[in-house]
Amino acid sequence: MADYQKHLEEIYQETIHLQGKGKVADYIPALAETEPTKYGITVCTLDGGLYRVGDADETFSIQSISKVFTFAMVFNAMGDKLWKRMGKEPSGTSFNSLIQLEKENGIPRNPFINAGALVCVDCLVSLTKNPLKEILSFVRKLSGNPKVNYDSVIADSERKTGFRNAALANFMKSFGNIENDVEEVLNAYFHQCSLMMSCTDLAKAFSFLANGGVNPQTGERHLTESQCKRMNALLQTCGMYDESGEFAFSTGLPGKSGVGGGIAAVLPRSLSICSWAPELNSYGNSLIGMKAMELFTTKTGISIF
Amino acid sequence: MADYQKHLEEIYQETIHLQGKGKVADYIPALAETEPTKYGITVCTLDGGLYRVGDADETFSIQSISKVFTFAMVFNAMGDKLWKRMGKEPSGTSFNSLIQLEKENGIPRNPFINAGALVCVDCLVSLTKNPLKEILSFVRKLSGNPKVNYDSVIADSERKTGFRNAALANFMKSFGNIENDVEEVLNAYFHQCSLMMSCTDLAKAFSFLANGGVNPQTGERHLTESQCKRMNALLQTCGMYDESGEFAFSTGLPGKSGVGGGIAAVLPRSLSICSWAPELNSYGNSLIGMKAMELFTTKTGISIF
Amino acid sequence: MADYQKHLEEIYQETIHLQGKGKVADYIPALAETEPTKYGITVCTLDGGLYRVGDADETFSIQSISKVFTFAMVFNAMGDKLWKRMGKEPSGTSFNSLIQLEKENGIPRNPFINAGALVCVDCLVSLTKNPLKEILSFVRKLSGNPKVNYDSVIADSERKTGFRNAALANFMKSFGNIENDVEEVLNAYFHQCSLMMSCTDLAKAFSFLANGGVNPQTGERHLTESQCKRMNALLQTCGMYDESGEFAFSTGLPGKSGVGGGIAAVLPRSLSICSWAPELNSYGNSLIGMKAMELFTTKTGISIF
Amino acid sequence: MADYQKHLEEIYQETIHLQGKGKVADYIPALAETEPTKYGITVCTLDGGLYRVGDADETFSIQSISKVFTFAMVFNAMGDKLWKRMGKEPSGTSFNSLIQLEKENGIPRNPFINAGALVCVDCLVSLTKNPLKEILSFVRKLSGNPKVNYDSVIADSERKTGFRNAALANFMKSFGNIENDVEEVLNAYFHQCSLMMSCTDLAKAFSFLANGGVNPQTGERHLTESQCKRMNALLQTCGMYDESGEFAFSTGLPGKSGVGGGIAAVLPRSLSICSWAPELNSYGNSLIGMKAMELFTTKTGISIF
Repeated sequence: MADYQKHLEEIYQETIHLQGKGKVADYIPALAETEPTKYGITVCTLDGGLYRVGDADETFSIQSISKVFTFAMVFNAMGDKLWKRMGKEPSGTSFNSLIQLEKENGIPRNPFINAGALVCVDCLVSLTKNPLKEILSFVRKLSGNPKVNYDSVIADSERKTGFRNAALANFMKSFGNIENDVEEVLNAYFHQCSLMMSCTDLAKAFSFLANGGVNPQTGERHLTESQCKRMNALLQTCGMYDESGEFAFSTGLPGKSGVGGGIAAVLPRSLSICSWAPELNSYGNSLIGMKAMELFTTKTGISIF
Repeated sequence: MADYQKHLEEIYQETIHLQGKGKVADYIPALAETEPTKYGITVCTLDGGLYRVGDADETFSIQSISKVFTFAMVFNAMGDKLWKRMGKEPSGTSFNSLIQLEKENGIPRNPFINAGALVCVDCLVSLTKNPLKEILSFVRKLSGNPKVNYDSVIADSERKTGFRNAALANFMKSFGNIENDVEEVLNAYFHQCSLMMSCTDLAKAFSFLANGGVNPQTGERHLTESQCKRMNALLQTCGMYDESGEFAFSTGLPGKSGVGGGIAAVLPRSLSICSWAPELNSYGNSLIGMKAMELFTTKTGISIF
Repeated sequence: MADYQKHLEEIYQETIHLQGKGKVADYIPALAETEPTKYGITVCTLDGGLYRVGDADETFSIQSISKVFTFAMVFNAMGDKLWKRMGKEPSGTSFNSLIQLEKENGIPRNPFINAGALVCVDCLVSLTKNPLKEILSFVRKLSGNPKVNYDSVIADSERKTGFRNAALANFMKSFGNIENDVEEVLNAYFHQCSLMMSCTDLAKAFSFLANGGVNPQTGERHLTESQCKRMNALLQTCGMYDESGEFAFSTGLPGKSGVGGGIAAVLPRSLSICSWAPELNSYGNSLIGMKAMELFTTKTGISIF
Repeated sequence: MADYQKHLEEIYQETIHLQGKGKVADYIPALAETEPTKYGITVCTLDGGLYRVGDADETFSIQSISKVFTFAMVFNAMGDKLWKRMGKEPSGTSFNSLIQLEKENGIPRNPFINAGALVCVDCLVSLTKNPLKEILSFVRKLSGNPKVNYDSVIADSERKTGFRNAALANFMKSFGNIENDVEEVLNAYFHQCSLMMSCTDLAKAFSFLANGGVNPQTGERHLTESQCKRMNALLQTCGMYDESGEFAFSTGLPGKSGVGGGIAAVLPRSLSICSWAPELNSYGNSLIGMKAMELFTTKTGISIF
């Protein structure tokens, strides 16, 4: 059996020198103020093991990693009807591009680019009276942490500067692919992105994806086994923006990143892992996190391939 | 001297059979209700001649033709500083496309596509406290008709369905190319588009462009001679959406069209002309109007080329 | 243990009714003449099992599946130097598009779109004096079938009509990303595409990808274990043109398709599989093959996810 | 009457200081060797006046200006049937882009981008047994100079490096929009571009476009009056690559540029003008020539607008 604790400590030592080579997201003040030297990793195995290094229990803004949770909620609720409103293919363009959206008549390429995530949120707004409460409840159950919450300063700040997302939502609305009021959808979206969670919270919250759709802590099923496989396939091909191929190539795990510096990934039937290091590479993914994930699969020899 | 009255009557007879071949704009109810069989033309010569046929004195929604007036106002006020915020080149894509805008970092290709017109309106909002009043005052002076006004039903209706324009404005705001509040800019834009004018109003209002920038009725200068030439050049290359080349090819006059079915054009140093027929071709230009303009230049032998 | 033979027979029965719903590739006569009702599947397990149904031993034109072999050859020879000349990301556009290539200065998105495969062939032409002989030798070793050969009628026919590929090669040459004579590269490329192999040949030839880079029949290593994992990741994200996400989603296996109607895929550490049914869906992948692959993973419960 | 000689001399003095600010085309040796300080202008009035300054009688490679001649030949021969194979709209993208061509199924946007010019040459190859001889004969008649000839060193050099044009021709052939052998079309195209002419030759050769289609020296009609107007409209909207709007804006004349540093333009019913200065701006147009043309229309007060 792999000595995960030892591996994490080695990885930490071997990657810490990369600090200073990336750039903390600075489009809103709340993110720009994050200390660039924060760095943590948590591994959560299906048999209950929990391995941590660095700032693994400090919360950060999970940003786009939240797209995984909303998608799981609406995929579970709507099943394959969801695919009338979005595709399953990698985008080949940056995460907030409008070009592909225009070419394809307002149908986002996949649920993990911003446009697709906005459609997921719109679905949730149609399905439930209180989407913000539902998201919070779902994420708390997944992580086993009842203290997980939104950061309303970040959410407000995003709203005030989120013109690109407002453009995306209005644009899809012009094609009839947003059902609800644009402001309401944006509000839910920006709150979802502002969720504050730690590496440990996220590793636990992702463990149902390693476990065929069932939360290993509670035994509750959130996706059918088939849906869980398919969701992992989507994360594999589309989870890391325009660097999804590189991540699949170097790491071989389905995963999702956020501009807050987090990356969460799973090895089906075995474990979930989350890293956090705020400095980003040119693709908007955590520079150190990308390397840490690669080292983790190299050192442990694990891979889906 | 050309017998313009006779030509207009011939053109009317030779084109009336095209009714039923186009499609009235139907994206808002107020436009969809326009009677498709309306059809009028007015020619206004610099020596004071006025020639009319059909419904030349009935008002209609001028829509994008209004972009000419706002552009003239801000070009006059700002001069060549304006070109930091927009280009002078034809777009090569449809009038409300976001693709080129994304490739070129939020700088619209020219003032006559929607994105460019929104920037012009944004400039006006920065320049004046009451942009709606200023626009109205300018258009009334140009047309000599103090009754020209907005149609607030149309303006409201546009606002409620104008998600594409909201997308454009938010998108440019994300690049820093909209200075004012998006809602305020959209409000002014939709009002401007809702201006109700007749062919005769518009032919008179365009006559300053045939007269080197000076209103021939009042003697007031609205653009320098050089600016007027340059504005005509812009209308020639960019005025008819993605059919500007075709219009230059078949008609040889600088002009501007609107989805309300109007087309206004000028022959420098000679005359201005406006046609109105609500049914549009696949490019969003008046189907009968395009043909009428071509026949007018063929019959009179006039052309800038 | 799964009863693969029984599963294959069930799949055959459950999918045969789809015949007539797709369209045989007809851009060259030699392909258009293929009998549309051909249909076979072979599964080859790492422990030596071989399971077949239908026309599994009849040869067909493998077309783009050949890209897998050339890529393996040059990846083995050049290692990560290869990535200076191509990317690892899904393309988001159709397999023979020039748009992305123009935006990204002649660097193809990945080795499995036509442009990337042409670069692979160009590398091979630079590496060896007789690329056609080397490809043949490699494929014969992998499949264990010394009779595998090119179909020169197909290769000639492709050359005479292959203007799109000639455009791609010339275009990349204009960016300096083709080193050798365009005609020489195209000749090798069209020959490679004309390789005639059966489902059984291809299943055997893919088994080294299920076996960490080592041919299970001969024990010969063709890729390092790390390279093999990475190649499978690339097949997962980029192997099925613009339907790669859908294939990952529905099947969960790394694979490669060809317009001849073949699809070959692997389950790492377990087996390789190849189907052949000439009628294609709108993405250029075998319509029946896509369904057969999905049923295979559903029935056996296998998946990498 | 304008004192053209005086104006030309002033323009020369006022622009000569711009030498060194542009860049001579260097993609083939023969062009790169051009002395960057060459500079000449010729004005040719319809009443027979000829005004020259600088190196106005030295020949240079006319490059894309030659597209005007082939287009006139095939427009005269085929009339409006030509528009089945190309459009009349500005491209909105650079002169040798494949993107728009792919979106619009191999139909070039207009006759003056490279793709459109290749289609014109293809038409000529279909129409005549000896296209090179016909082009030469036409250009000699237009310029009144029987010594005009191809530069075979330049033509060969272009062929050896002209991979982008080979890509364009093969690409259009894949859509069925090139009728003849690709190599034959490219050969004629590269010869046409290699024509060596002086400013005086070109000003004379363009004078039929200022004269309603009739060569003022010989009285021979080369285009109908209507065709001539339409051709000028096309030059106005499409003649200067992606700087056509800027040229129309600043100069107000229909014209055509070449990467050899030439610009030729006409004022309908009055005169033709050609400048030559080899250093190019970032759009591939002569940097000094663009300024000289603008000054010419400013000083003389001429404009079509």
